[in-house]
Amino acid sequence: MSAFLPHGRHLLVDLHGIAAVRLTDTAAIEALLREAARVAGSTPVGGHFHTFGPGLGVTGVLLLQESHISIHTWPEHGFAALDVFMCGSARAERAVAHIEAALKPGETRRIEARRGLDPAAVLAR
Amino acid sequence: MSAFLPHGRHLLVDLHGIAAVRLTDTAAIEALLREAARVAGSTPVGGHFHTFGPGLGVTGVLLLQESHISIHTWPEHGFAALDVFMCGSARAERAVAHIEAALKPGETRRIEARRGLDPAAVLAR
Repeated sequence: MSAFLPHGRHLLVDLHGIAAVRLTDTAAIEALLREAARVAGSTPVGGHFHTFGPGLGVTGVLLLQESHISIHTWPEHGFAALDVFMCGSARAERAVAHIEAALKPGETRRIEARRGLDPAAVLAR
Repeated sequence: MSAFLPHGRHLLVDLHGIAAVRLTDTAAIEALLREAARVAGSTPVGGHFHTFGPGLGVTGVLLLQESHISIHTWPEHGFAALDVFMCGSARAERAVAHIEAALKPGETRRIEARRGLDPAAVLAR
């Protein structure tokens, strides 16, 4: 990476109680992550999405200039594990909110980590 | 996902003080993540790796049956942001150790999160 300082927010979000039908459509999940990236002000540079079979889960990632969004779904448990890592001015929390609004979980648990170098130290170099 | 319970460990690892030459070779970084996946006992199902240009950083992800390994590098800052999320019996810490041994950071900072449902509750259903 070089477009942004090596500093960002990494949100790990467990989404529980989602209707299974929202967790099995690979194309819809990819479209959702792409729209979430757009809403957050980030720029995709590639990605990969994989289905485990009809009616089964989806696993996918969208790589961004600003880092990534990944999701792994378990429709049989109504569960999705999302992580959103964004550097620069992109707004990770907006991506999370967009995905939550679409998947409509009954419960959300979130962990936030600060990643990378102290921006003040980097800028002072 | 369906091969594994919706439960796993997610390691966020900041690697500081790495020689820049180890952070710019996209093919080498992909090979390193694939070898780390193997060492951890996990199975890749796809991936995507992107370079920001000659001498610049690499961003990439390896999707696994057990979730994913991602890395974002900033050679100009000697920094790499790694995350390893593995479900099932795969050993995330082995993947991290393999990558650390190859990149030789001067300092490592790690956050570990437990993701997903309580395995006992899932098995009791």
